[in-house]
Amino acid sequence: MSTSALRYAESNRDRFLHDLETLLRIPSISTLPEHKGDMERAAVCLRERLAHIGLRTELVEGDGHPLVLAEWLETGDAPTLLLYGHYDVQPVDPLDLWETAPFEPTIRNGNVYARGASDDKGQVMTLVAAAESLLKTEGRLPINIKFLIEGEEEAGGNVIDAYVAGHGGDIKADAAQVADTSMFAPGIPALETGLRGNVYTEVFVRGASHDLHSGLYGGVAPNPLNALSHIIAGLKDPYGVITIPGFYDDVCMPEEAVLDDWRSLPFDERQFQRDMGASALVGEPGYTALERTWARPTLDVHGIVGGFTGSGGKTVIPATASAKISMRIVPRQNASHIFELFTQRVLDLVPPGVDVKVDLLHSGEAVSVPPDSNFLKAAALALEDTFGRPPVLTHSGGSIPIVGTFKDRLGLDSILMGWGLPDDNLHAPNEKFSIDNFSKGINATIRFWDRLSAAQ
Amino acid sequence: MSTSALRYAESNRDRFLHDLETLLRIPSISTLPEHKGDMERAAVCLRERLAHIGLRTELVEGDGHPLVLAEWLETGDAPTLLLYGHYDVQPVDPLDLWETAPFEPTIRNGNVYARGASDDKGQVMTLVAAAESLLKTEGRLPINIKFLIEGEEEAGGNVIDAYVAGHGGDIKADAAQVADTSMFAPGIPALETGLRGNVYTEVFVRGASHDLHSGLYGGVAPNPLNALSHIIAGLKDPYGVITIPGFYDDVCMPEEAVLDDWRSLPFDERQFQRDMGASALVGEPGYTALERTWARPTLDVHGIVGGFTGSGGKTVIPATASAKISMRIVPRQNASHIFELFTQRVLDLVPPGVDVKVDLLHSGEAVSVPPDSNFLKAAALALEDTFGRPPVLTHSGGSIPIVGTFKDRLGLDSILMGWGLPDDNLHAPNEKFSIDNFSKGINATIRFWDRLSAAQ
Repeated sequence: MSTSALRYAESNRDRFLHDLETLLRIPSISTLPEHKGDMERAAVCLRERLAHIGLRTELVEGDGHPLVLAEWLETGDAPTLLLYGHYDVQPVDPLDLWETAPFEPTIRNGNVYARGASDDKGQVMTLVAAAESLLKTEGRLPINIKFLIEGEEEAGGNVIDAYVAGHGGDIKADAAQVADTSMFAPGIPALETGLRGNVYTEVFVRGASHDLHSGLYGGVAPNPLNALSHIIAGLKDPYGVITIPGFYDDVCMPEEAVLDDWRSLPFDERQFQRDMGASALVGEPGYTALERTWARPTLDVHGIVGGFTGSGGKTVIPATASAKISMRIVPRQNASHIFELFTQRVLDLVPPGVDVKVDLLHSGEAVSVPPDSNFLKAAALALEDTFGRPPVLTHSGGSIPIVGTFKDRLGLDSILMGWGLPDDNLHAPNEKFSIDNFSKGINATIRFWDRLSAAQ
Repeated sequence: MSTSALRYAESNRDRFLHDLETLLRIPSISTLPEHKGDMERAAVCLRERLAHIGLRTELVEGDGHPLVLAEWLETGDAPTLLLYGHYDVQPVDPLDLWETAPFEPTIRNGNVYARGASDDKGQVMTLVAAAESLLKTEGRLPINIKFLIEGEEEAGGNVIDAYVAGHGGDIKADAAQVADTSMFAPGIPALETGLRGNVYTEVFVRGASHDLHSGLYGGVAPNPLNALSHIIAGLKDPYGVITIPGFYDDVCMPEEAVLDDWRSLPFDERQFQRDMGASALVGEPGYTALERTWARPTLDVHGIVGGFTGSGGKTVIPATASAKISMRIVPRQNASHIFELFTQRVLDLVPPGVDVKVDLLHSGEAVSVPPDSNFLKAAALALEDTFGRPPVLTHSGGSIPIVGTFKDRLGLDSILMGWGLPDDNLHAPNEKFSIDNFSKGINATIRFWDRLSAAQ
């Protein structure tokens, strides 16, 4: 056991936090073209850090934001782990709801607040800090590692897919460690063995060729916003059941034993609802909240664009409107097929007088990780050593498309072990990351790699 | 007959156009707070013009944008006309669809293009030019006139209502002349004897207290955009029939003779549709397009705000969403009652997990003008003199709330005589106003006032 590395990590805790803050200050929002320069800066910052601790590094430029690669392969027959994370972050709007500036990391109540703190820069930096702690104290790592850190996780870009497709040999490994998930609750570590996939679409509606006055044309002019509302209302009933024909055909729930485990988890639906600040949990009747978020497909509208949105009233019938709509899908559902069913349903719902186009923005398949993997077992023991209790084996409602890619392209199972918390405000104002979990994540990662070595 | 005034108007045509352009250069957008200074400038510009031609003028400041008053009351027993128009304009978005800048008036194909050209600065300036033509050539007017030009027609402000309520005696008149309507078609003047009213609302939906990640919360989190779509879809069927209980109870169609007249008008529904650039006319089955826009109530969504609207995809479940929704109402419907029915229907449609609030932004009752009024007859003759054909007696789908106020508060019927054209792009990019109609409008106004004098 690398006790010296664990001690090093403990005594360098503040400096690791400082390194994280440096990365958090770079507004690397991958979906917004005006942040292209920041994406480059973030990639270079991360690469320099990895080079500084002794890894061989490389930036891979593609048709999008760069990939950061780094490797240390000096441990002979020991297993090789492919380490995945992302340095890009979500947009920050609505900016006025942030208590402190999203790219000025601020410490409050034992957390660091910043866009990307938990998703995913904080998690990436646990991997970097674990590698540094081992290399600085023992001069070597217990296993071989290959970092593969992308800048398009939030944007659905394809640089990493293209790289994996073209350079599978360069990133040959025995398993992947994906640092982009959450703990079940404070003090309760989790290993995620299932992830929902995602099918993200945009629906464009056109009525007249130009905006019209609702007084003069109201009654005969097709209204794209009314049409869009009609279409959206036809996709899902008010209780959360998706009304796209065939949508549920391939959905298969986990085994009853798994569902029993989930029911035994310390999960308080009322508290969950209160944390959301909503007057009620919604969703498909007959399923628990965990089942609805972990094992059931869903459909949500993320944004609608159209018409006059300033203050006051403008009596316009807009020429166009559009909506961003995504579906979370579960194992056995197929993203392409679901997109086809969705498109057909949308087109079936089109009212008279408007033309509708449906685009696929990006998609990723759902993934299951086999619970009997040796890597998973080593990770479970490392987590128990660090947190004093075994992890819970959960699913997650979120999508990490790369996990599907690793499985399909490279045959790798992914160990999904992360340090976020359910209330970290991912993709929302006031994103945060627990500094204590940051340290424990470094500790658990060192122990995980040690256990993989010992298992040889 | 004031032939000298008509000649003066003809020979000052270019200068009148120049005066109009000066007013059009002021971006007097009443709904946007950042244009408050421009509102003041536009009011002062108009007041100075009216003072310059010899009227007694006044600016009335209130809790909003100023009213421009001007009067000439030296013609003893002759009738007094209250002249109404507005100097405020609609917002200009989407700006990128304007061929030339909205506040840089540009002459193309015999039209002046600018925001407010037709609605309503061009029409206001016909009144000003008619008064100038008479005063400069004859030293007097054939009738008494009182200008009442407001700056809140597009914003639903209440400065003019407050003024009319408090100063009814100051603006005592025998009828109103409202310069804010259109001709039926090029060469075919119209007198409008019916106007739809308007009930403009905003519906606010709240789900969680903060934005949520659709992966982690999708399936249990209430989604305000889905909820809003469900609500909107429940207000109107895809064919245009409003599904608010009781909504049509007080609707009364015009007499069959009036409908017969409308059916005889040279109105080509196919051409109307082509001009709109839509693939079909929509609306209530069983009514002609003119009936649907002139005599039937409607409901349209003008704008939806909520969620992520940038490029690319953000997997957010927004905390809030809102929609601007208005209804055009017809004579015998009551705006307050319709708002109550609307609100009740919206609240009945609220799905689980969201809270909904409905605001009334502004409203105006529908109005009918009696077709046997002497003022209407004088106007019809003046129009026939100018255009070589009698006007058609139409309704309009648009709302002019002040016409209802004049009727209710002052007992005045309004002569709705205007120089716009159906394709003037009111409230839309590339608004225009025909320069020939501008001149004919001045000519017809001089003749109208002359005929009112002669009728004494």
